[in-house]
Amino acid sequence: MADLHLLSPRGFRAAGVYAGIKSKQTPDVGLLVCETRAAAAAVFTTNRVFAAPVKVGREHVADGRLRAVVVNAGNANACTGRQGEKDAYRMCDLAAGAVGCETGDVLPSSTGIIGHKLPMEKLERGILDAATRLGDSHEHALLFADAILTTDTKRKAAGVSFKVGREVVALAGVCKGSGMIGPRMALPGVGAGSRKKSKAVPLHATMLAYLTTDAKVAAPLLRKLLANASDGSFNAVTVDDHMSTNDTAALLASGLGPAIDSPRAAASFAAALNEVCQSLAYQIAADGEGATKVVIVSVKGASSDAAAKAMARAIANSPLVKCAMNGNDPNWGRIVSAAGLVGVPFDPDRATLTLQGTVVFRNGQPVEFDAAAVSRSLATAEVKAELSCRMGKSDATVWTCDLSKDYVTINADYHT
Amino acid sequence: MADLHLLSPRGFRAAGVYAGIKSKQTPDVGLLVCETRAAAAAVFTTNRVFAAPVKVGREHVADGRLRAVVVNAGNANACTGRQGEKDAYRMCDLAAGAVGCETGDVLPSSTGIIGHKLPMEKLERGILDAATRLGDSHEHALLFADAILTTDTKRKAAGVSFKVGREVVALAGVCKGSGMIGPRMALPGVGAGSRKKSKAVPLHATMLAYLTTDAKVAAPLLRKLLANASDGSFNAVTVDDHMSTNDTAALLASGLGPAIDSPRAAASFAAALNEVCQSLAYQIAADGEGATKVVIVSVKGASSDAAAKAMARAIANSPLVKCAMNGNDPNWGRIVSAAGLVGVPFDPDRATLTLQGTVVFRNGQPVEFDAAAVSRSLATAEVKAELSCRMGKSDATVWTCDLSKDYVTINADYHT
Repeated sequence: MADLHLLSPRGFRAAGVYAGIKSKQTPDVGLLVCETRAAAAAVFTTNRVFAAPVKVGREHVADGRLRAVVVNAGNANACTGRQGEKDAYRMCDLAAGAVGCETGDVLPSSTGIIGHKLPMEKLERGILDAATRLGDSHEHALLFADAILTTDTKRKAAGVSFKVGREVVALAGVCKGSGMIGPRMALPGVGAGSRKKSKAVPLHATMLAYLTTDAKVAAPLLRKLLANASDGSFNAVTVDDHMSTNDTAALLASGLGPAIDSPRAAASFAAALNEVCQSLAYQIAADGEGATKVVIVSVKGASSDAAAKAMARAIANSPLVKCAMNGNDPNWGRIVSAAGLVGVPFDPDRATLTLQGTVVFRNGQPVEFDAAAVSRSLATAEVKAELSCRMGKSDATVWTCDLSKDYVTINADYHT
Repeated sequence: MADLHLLSPRGFRAAGVYAGIKSKQTPDVGLLVCETRAAAAAVFTTNRVFAAPVKVGREHVADGRLRAVVVNAGNANACTGRQGEKDAYRMCDLAAGAVGCETGDVLPSSTGIIGHKLPMEKLERGILDAATRLGDSHEHALLFADAILTTDTKRKAAGVSFKVGREVVALAGVCKGSGMIGPRMALPGVGAGSRKKSKAVPLHATMLAYLTTDAKVAAPLLRKLLANASDGSFNAVTVDDHMSTNDTAALLASGLGPAIDSPRAAASFAAALNEVCQSLAYQIAADGEGATKVVIVSVKGASSDAAAKAMARAIANSPLVKCAMNGNDPNWGRIVSAAGLVGVPFDPDRATLTLQGTVVFRNGQPVEFDAAAVSRSLATAEVKAELSCRMGKSDATVWTCDLSKDYVTINADYHT
């Protein structure tokens, strides 16, 4: 994945500039432009409290076409009422003017403080500045990737290529996310309320992901594949299970490469998309606020997909499990009891739990194991907990991270 | 409430002794005995992974009669298979023999380490010892209250009296709970699996509550009132939302006082029971692991009871909200967005949020407030967050606590 970046697919240019919205002097306005009117799909937060750019984004992607994405970090434009909506449209207007396209072909995104009006003067200058700096080099991709970060400690990117016949398709993406991460995104169609004006405070995070490809894909197929890929990646990550107001993942297909017009090509495309999304999702879990490790929770053999997901999420979200992982404590009782608490069919007498490959619980009873050795095996950057249920054929995997004192430090009082 | 204790209601005696199960030398075996065959009701964890004493307790309370409760702390007898069941029955046998009643009239409870066999020799000596030390003084009540504690830092008790005609009814209780607190208890009827033998590790906590009254109440009414009272108290407390394998609340009515045989008397009894259960539940939240404060989350005007509860629980369980409370941070965006993420009808444009009485968000937009003053108002032992939804007529209140670095310390590595 190393060599392919967001601008490897043909037809895309991007820029990231510092406009003075974030206090830290790193890029905070990003512009991603496609030279064609790209086929496009996007999934958005299903939180009933959703930011103005989510409302506008749902409208603008509805026709399955986008020319550009304009994004700012440092201010979420959430809980900002009618002015917030105007500002989100204005972001699109500015980008459209600079790029030479319709306002409705621009997807806006914001991430940062909730409840503050966007600083439109700075943002306007930033968007116009970005439009003059567009390019398709790896460095341009990096600057765009940086422009979407907030509390993230690392830039997040992935890319793959695959062949359709003899032609090569490139598919790549960038994302951000560290705290307020519990996405359950869906295609537009889930609606509700709007927001109004502002004056306030709280910082927060969000997950944002932007994906590019040069394949020629019809928008309906793009929508379906993105929704599927999100369910198996972004929607399977949890840092704190707190779904944000701004979560957005968008996929633009320039159509300058081969057409995805056979089931086989669609399968290849889906596999590539899943791979990129899963890599990005993993990077979010690994960079969770205060995280020292990724915890991969796998539930196997549940009675239904919903049951498998519910158990995996309950395990991944339990503060007791997450603290145990922080302390390298093979505290299997917390994991087994978390699986039991969601109310889906689960019989501990049929279950087996392994931690880093060591069986610690089987058929309703403890298994003798070397606790010190298992504890040592947990002291690593990636921990696997696998619960086999023998209740059915459904599996689910959720990525999370441990809960550390640093998480509390980061979230206890940055505001006042 | 101060003067009434667990043994104030007529007909009850209790003891608490140290049998060497806990490493700390405080009572770890408790016995509560009623001189009559008390009318009884109990609610238990609905976790699919439930401890042996929960299985046995469900059986023994099924006929609505109990003579005694026998309880140990330091070992949960959970995930201990068939041997665990035998041991739970044996606890009842021993208590029944010492008290002179049927085994089936004894309710067993355990709390502590998951996945270890009960140390039956110690426990046997402890039960027999306790049986010789029964008494009805306040001190006896305190010793029993201490015998159920694990990671709790405080003993938890409450009691009230009320009149039925000219006669006085006493109703009192004790409880324990600090971590692994997210009870959703129900009357017996929800079943599943059993456990087997042992050799292992993890400590955990649970909530246990025992209530006494001298009223004469039919068991079916007792069951109904206890289930209602639990829903509005124990089932509305969350420390970490991790429902335990052992949660149990039992109510014994000796019948030596006035009969609850009119709607008015039943209403008085219900009010007293609710008051005692709510006091106990509050004490659990206040003594949550690492807690520096209680946070009372009230949701008003939701579209249904389920919606109100779901929003209140989402707010109370959000690590972001809990960390903000720890840092006295009036971070209202986290609260409003938590209400929106559970998917129940909620329109932020109709909502108002107050923190300690100060309006911070109204009708979809921020309200100007003195952040430093509100932050100061949060630096106290009890914080109230109230979200008014204007969606309907349903209200819900959930008690939780803040999330501190101490919570992580307590739970990260006591095991290895």
